[in-house]
Amino acid sequence: MANERTLTIALNTLPRLRAAIAGEAFERFGSAAGILAAPAGELTALRGIGPILAGAVRGLDAERAGEEEERRARALGITILTFDDQDYPERLRLIPDPPRVLYRLGVLLPPDGDGIAVIGARAATAYGRTVAERLGRELAAAGITVISGLARGIDGCAHRGALAGGGRTVAVLGSGLDRMYPPEHARLAAGIAAQGALLSEFPLGAEPEPWHFPLRNRVISGLARGVVVVEAAVRSGALGTADMALEQGREVFAIPGPITAPTSAGTNRLIRQGAGLVEGARDILESFPDLAARLPAAEAEPAALAGLSDPERRLLCAIGSAPLPIDDIIRVSPGPAAATAALLTALELKGLVRQHPGKIFARA
Amino acid sequence: MANERTLTIALNTLPRLRAAIAGEAFERFGSAAGILAAPAGELTALRGIGPILAGAVRGLDAERAGEEEERRARALGITILTFDDQDYPERLRLIPDPPRVLYRLGVLLPPDGDGIAVIGARAATAYGRTVAERLGRELAAAGITVISGLARGIDGCAHRGALAGGGRTVAVLGSGLDRMYPPEHARLAAGIAAQGALLSEFPLGAEPEPWHFPLRNRVISGLARGVVVVEAAVRSGALGTADMALEQGREVFAIPGPITAPTSAGTNRLIRQGAGLVEGARDILESFPDLAARLPAAEAEPAALAGLSDPERRLLCAIGSAPLPIDDIIRVSPGPAAATAALLTALELKGLVRQHPGKIFARA
Repeated sequence: MANERTLTIALNTLPRLRAAIAGEAFERFGSAAGILAAPAGELTALRGIGPILAGAVRGLDAERAGEEEERRARALGITILTFDDQDYPERLRLIPDPPRVLYRLGVLLPPDGDGIAVIGARAATAYGRTVAERLGRELAAAGITVISGLARGIDGCAHRGALAGGGRTVAVLGSGLDRMYPPEHARLAAGIAAQGALLSEFPLGAEPEPWHFPLRNRVISGLARGVVVVEAAVRSGALGTADMALEQGREVFAIPGPITAPTSAGTNRLIRQGAGLVEGARDILESFPDLAARLPAAEAEPAALAGLSDPERRLLCAIGSAPLPIDDIIRVSPGPAAATAALLTALELKGLVRQHPGKIFARA
Repeated sequence: MANERTLTIALNTLPRLRAAIAGEAFERFGSAAGILAAPAGELTALRGIGPILAGAVRGLDAERAGEEEERRARALGITILTFDDQDYPERLRLIPDPPRVLYRLGVLLPPDGDGIAVIGARAATAYGRTVAERLGRELAAAGITVISGLARGIDGCAHRGALAGGGRTVAVLGSGLDRMYPPEHARLAAGIAAQGALLSEFPLGAEPEPWHFPLRNRVISGLARGVVVVEAAVRSGALGTADMALEQGREVFAIPGPITAPTSAGTNRLIRQGAGLVEGARDILESFPDLAARLPAAEAEPAALAGLSDPERRLLCAIGSAPLPIDDIIRVSPGPAAATAALLTALELKGLVRQHPGKIFARA
């Protein structure tokens, strides 16, 4: 009798069973062996399994099919992880419906468990592409693994940015790992396999079917500590991923954009609904105290503003670049006159404010 | 002896006293007459009043100066309101440092007390101009008075939008009402006076000095129920107004923009700090239950989505435009299978979802 691992891999090759086995079938029958041994009538009692699928399970030469799939994967340098393998990603294990099987090209390292997903529209604008690339680069430079879906548009730019930043990146595919999609990302995929991993729950030879992508999206958010949506229309896969991320207890972030751009309508809506507004990697990492420590201190703020107290900062903001007489500054400042005067002196000493004749002040 | 009103107007014509009298001087001496009768030594004990200014107060022929200012205003069709006039705007009366004198060209009507300020950068981008104009138009069309500062850029577009929307708009100036600034807004100002009012705390003949504008800004936010910043750099007068608005207890809103545009850095920051993200007039008015009632119901949502329950809406979002087999839809939906199937049927009946052969569903 073949081992449980081989049988699980075999079951996962049945295209229409894949979704179901991750859910109730495994719970109901306890194991791949249990599913394979179940009477057809008990299989069809489960939702999503009709007579045809039940027949396919019953007719499966599981041992042979599983061993064949393992052999093919090995030949391609692909590792197959099942749910019980110790290399199976811990964070993904905890989502409501983790894939039972995960194909991997490349390696996963412990820091990948703290990765951030950067996702968005395939039909991205120049703005979205620029931002995705920059965010990928910033995260990678801070030692954060960038997780995405290898798709055209935002995904590809995020991966590229991470590679350019000299960091790690993980791509989750909606097809078999030997059916790289889209084809023009073949070189990018090779780069990702070298500086991270390509992952898929779909067996070798699986095409990028439209219905694979919602499933793929739950793995992207499931692997990540947080999900950043760069660009998304109001009804889009990226927003679906954001919903799923929230259900999985992940932090959701979004990049704001023009309210006149349909590609930012989804991200602006996310922000209105409470997603964190992101202007750069810093905004994401600061939401995770343990990750924030990785930010280079110098990046923290423009040097001149770094050492300011809150009242100093507020006063500097109130002054602006137009010269202002001291009594007007005092007038618009909340504190007592003496305190405002002291703050002005401090700002002057720091070279941020210049005094003109007649007690008139302006930003230096 | 001239009346208190005339003396207050006279004191307000002293350029450097104006700020101070709104503050401690009136409290300290009880009235304009009290200030005018105070010994120089007591005047200089107040912050912002030096010997020169105290001399100017003591040397002021207040009765004559006040009457002359009133006469000039009358000749220009300008009404002068002092703090004690019943026409003085109620909301403005309650800010920490209301102007003691307010010049008005045009009229204020009761609905103006529920106005919304729309402000932003003078150096606005095409994006900001478009949005300011649109927002002004939408607010005006909903019967909301648009308050702004007549400046170049965002302010001018907001006023223009309100006029185009057939609504009311109020402009607060940083100069005397006979020194309209900027000059190219003279026609716009005439339109505002006809469909609202021009206001200023500065006396006739006052030039648009740089230090007038922070004072002007507190009147803009002071008059409004809420303040929307359309575009603003990180250090800008508009952000100063937003700070002031918060101190005055006003709601602050901001329009998101590209994180790559310096003109949106200030508004994006405001949103991160908790300002309401605004995509249109609806988002503002919904923050004020009494104002939300003014929104036309039809504008509420695309007709097709209006009657959907939350679960229906969520399911519709999950489906997207790619065809999805029913078992995958069930799989990614949180509820039980039967409930999801029922929702699908409901969406199909509403014409929002189409069923393809093989129990495959897609958006209609």
